[in-house]
Amino acid sequence: MSFQTKNPVTGEVLPGSFTKSSAEEVSRACGSCAAAATTLRRKSGEELAGLLETIGASLTEARDAIIERVQAETGYPDGRVQGEFGRMVGGFAAFAEVARDGSWVEATIDHADPDRAPLPKPDLRKMLIPVGPVGIFGASNFPLALSAGGSDVTSALAAGCPVVVKGHSSHAGTCELIGMAIQEGVAKAGFPEGTYQLVQGEGHEVGEAIVTHPDVAAVGFTGSLRGGRALFDLAAQREVPIPLYAEMGSVNPQFVLPELVEANGEGFAESFFGSITLGNGQFCTCPGMLFLPPGSDALLEKLASLVADSTGQPVLNEGICSAFESGMSRLESLEGVQVLAKGTLEGAVVGAPAMVVQVSYADYVAQREVLSEEVFGPSAVVVVCDEVAQFTEAARNFEGQLGASLHGTESELAGAKNFLDELERFTGRVVVNAFPTGLEVCHSLVHGGPYPATTNSHFTSVGQSGITRWARAMSYQGVPDALLPPTLQEANPLGIARRVDGVFTL
Amino acid sequence: MSFQTKNPVTGEVLPGSFTKSSAEEVSRACGSCAAAATTLRRKSGEELAGLLETIGASLTEARDAIIERVQAETGYPDGRVQGEFGRMVGGFAAFAEVARDGSWVEATIDHADPDRAPLPKPDLRKMLIPVGPVGIFGASNFPLALSAGGSDVTSALAAGCPVVVKGHSSHAGTCELIGMAIQEGVAKAGFPEGTYQLVQGEGHEVGEAIVTHPDVAAVGFTGSLRGGRALFDLAAQREVPIPLYAEMGSVNPQFVLPELVEANGEGFAESFFGSITLGNGQFCTCPGMLFLPPGSDALLEKLASLVADSTGQPVLNEGICSAFESGMSRLESLEGVQVLAKGTLEGAVVGAPAMVVQVSYADYVAQREVLSEEVFGPSAVVVVCDEVAQFTEAARNFEGQLGASLHGTESELAGAKNFLDELERFTGRVVVNAFPTGLEVCHSLVHGGPYPATTNSHFTSVGQSGITRWARAMSYQGVPDALLPPTLQEANPLGIARRVDGVFTL
Repeated sequence: MSFQTKNPVTGEVLPGSFTKSSAEEVSRACGSCAAAATTLRRKSGEELAGLLETIGASLTEARDAIIERVQAETGYPDGRVQGEFGRMVGGFAAFAEVARDGSWVEATIDHADPDRAPLPKPDLRKMLIPVGPVGIFGASNFPLALSAGGSDVTSALAAGCPVVVKGHSSHAGTCELIGMAIQEGVAKAGFPEGTYQLVQGEGHEVGEAIVTHPDVAAVGFTGSLRGGRALFDLAAQREVPIPLYAEMGSVNPQFVLPELVEANGEGFAESFFGSITLGNGQFCTCPGMLFLPPGSDALLEKLASLVADSTGQPVLNEGICSAFESGMSRLESLEGVQVLAKGTLEGAVVGAPAMVVQVSYADYVAQREVLSEEVFGPSAVVVVCDEVAQFTEAARNFEGQLGASLHGTESELAGAKNFLDELERFTGRVVVNAFPTGLEVCHSLVHGGPYPATTNSHFTSVGQSGITRWARAMSYQGVPDALLPPTLQEANPLGIARRVDGVFTL
Repeated sequence: MSFQTKNPVTGEVLPGSFTKSSAEEVSRACGSCAAAATTLRRKSGEELAGLLETIGASLTEARDAIIERVQAETGYPDGRVQGEFGRMVGGFAAFAEVARDGSWVEATIDHADPDRAPLPKPDLRKMLIPVGPVGIFGASNFPLALSAGGSDVTSALAAGCPVVVKGHSSHAGTCELIGMAIQEGVAKAGFPEGTYQLVQGEGHEVGEAIVTHPDVAAVGFTGSLRGGRALFDLAAQREVPIPLYAEMGSVNPQFVLPELVEANGEGFAESFFGSITLGNGQFCTCPGMLFLPPGSDALLEKLASLVADSTGQPVLNEGICSAFESGMSRLESLEGVQVLAKGTLEGAVVGAPAMVVQVSYADYVAQREVLSEEVFGPSAVVVVCDEVAQFTEAARNFEGQLGASLHGTESELAGAKNFLDELERFTGRVVVNAFPTGLEVCHSLVHGGPYPATTNSHFTSVGQSGITRWARAMSYQGVPDALLPPTLQEANPLGIARRVDGVFTL
């Protein structure tokens, strides 16, 4: 069974056809990863860093071909594609650093005390070790930074786990080019073939085959709630259940305090418009809900004019396009929901115009659930409140979200501690005076949050800290120093921070 | 519906009757925890430490009554009960220290860089925060250290999570006394009632009601594979799935190298006998399988005589007693399985005699699965191998285990790096020249391991590091210093180790 991909700007079918991997091919790929896992778990951080750097160089060599293909498959503008390519390659460099540094394993040492009474105390040492083969499902909206060479891939390889990637069917050609470049890098670095495997396919079968394969030890997924939950259920129902880390998007509510509206409502409207139309709204961090205090008319007018004047952009595929259209119709049909403004769509066959709807707080409360559903694309629901106290009530009723922001003047923020606590309850990231879009990839980033934003709020899916998803805890009792991993040897050959006898030691 | 508990030594029904909590009572308990969660998550580490210490003092005051009851309900000897009481109270002190220290939250800071091109870099800070109400199922075999006042309780409270405990029905009276003492401590410390809730009941309903209650955010369980898996499935199937950390025991295989057998086979037999009969084998770390090289006759003779001369001990309840009997009959009935020795049972109505069976490597391989099933109690399966190379083959075929040990002389161990790697593949703890029993509770302990030893191999259920199970990742972007948790404030008021701009800093 073969399939092709389309250019959303022109609607044309792109050259190249992709064969859906058979059950046997998926099984062979997973088995190949399992064989490689034994090699990878014995590699040093330095060796894993070398692997990641070699792959980064391979990707850079393939840059022009990848960029041409991804642009054709996504309709993303130049700047976006260049930037995202940089982020993908930068991810290999960043995780090479994490692997080389080696301190991510939470090394912990408790020394023996043979004289302790009544029983001698044994020597115990603990660290995180790789879980084994990791299945990875890329996101449609980040064909470079969160797909076949994205941050799930880099973090898993840095942890010492081989990966089997299911290419996203709407940018299958991009996945293939990335996959080839990565496999070239793997070979150059002298790592086994099973270090990186790519399988392709439309529909559910290929993904289900990965999640249920006995050799797969953990899975990373970025996509819809429906898809993520279905795979999570499969992973939990296995004879040997495995963790499935799904990041499933959210509406990321924004709350704006009155002094700021008064002082700079129009400026806020401009930034907000920029955030909801960034990447044509195809970000899981897109701020899809905006809570405004009374007296926000100027802000709303400005926002309306920006939206009305906008000319739309392509969206990634027909599925997203039709889901956006039906999502917006659903919103429009609700009691008390008014269209604040709608843009036009020019220059794309498969695209979406920006659109913002407005609703009173009372009508929002009466239809909270449906108004809080994510409509993936350049849209937002503006809830005009009667008083700021309603912000707290609204916050208390949110389900899990990736992010939420509070916008206010310095003096307003000074009194907002309790409200920030309310935001903290349901999010993975509280943002002040900025939008959740434009992830800053660093150690402190949490791109995560309570369900349904993700299936596991202990971890982040983006940022260096995401590496710990691919590891399990291991302890060594009474193991002679020479037989310990260097990470835990007494002389600390890696020179990392470790918790020794309860105390962090550099 | 009410129930009573029994003294396994005398078989007599003990005074006191316990009422199975109704669905409404469980729901009220969980709701009360949810209300308390809001208070607890705002408490400082110092305040949580105070809570734990006050509870520890309450338990110490109730010591005599608790010890009398636990001894009646378990038949454990004096030394064991005294020791375990100390471990329970010590757990409150240890986790008070963890809470006060505050460094367990993995604090991470990345500073802003407003001048960075093309985009300014925001300030981001990350830490672990409490997940909310935690449901806890105590273990039958550790009525003090792993039950109503056990390490799941102490670690959850230290993390700032209220707990709802399901008392174990075979030591319900002990749970009630512990629960009362803890609630007294909670009140004395000025914490809300929902900080600690105890519900009771035989059968599954009470436990299922906890796991499926919408207010419960995570669950800790210690017990059987069957029970743990059933609750894990329920937790995963919820509308909002929650993590269920189940520790479900294992057979913890032991491998003994030939020089050691030659040098000190009889000494080894004595220690091994001590380990399998410790607590009458009622430990999830009990070494239930022993792999010996050829030439182990003296060791086996010694072991046989120790077992034959033993007079048994009580087991905790009739369920364990009959499971042990049927488990041993099943083993005896297998092809090639011989009884090496069986002890007698004296002085206990509900008890178990020690028993060791022996099988050749070939017969073991032919019946690997059934021979690797845990028989909870004072028993072991000895596999007599034809050559040491079979150890590796055996290790490669093990399912997840809590622990595994290698025993050998210094020179044998020097060449055992690869074999230790094999043990690492399937365990949470590799032990050299000691048995997995007698957990050393410290930061470096991993009491965990791949499924079916646990449902989540990333974490440990015992030891200070177990606290992270009850937390989720949270990041703060652009939040003014005064509004940040003290843990993340620029001046580092808690004086903890933090990862700052990628580097660990004290």
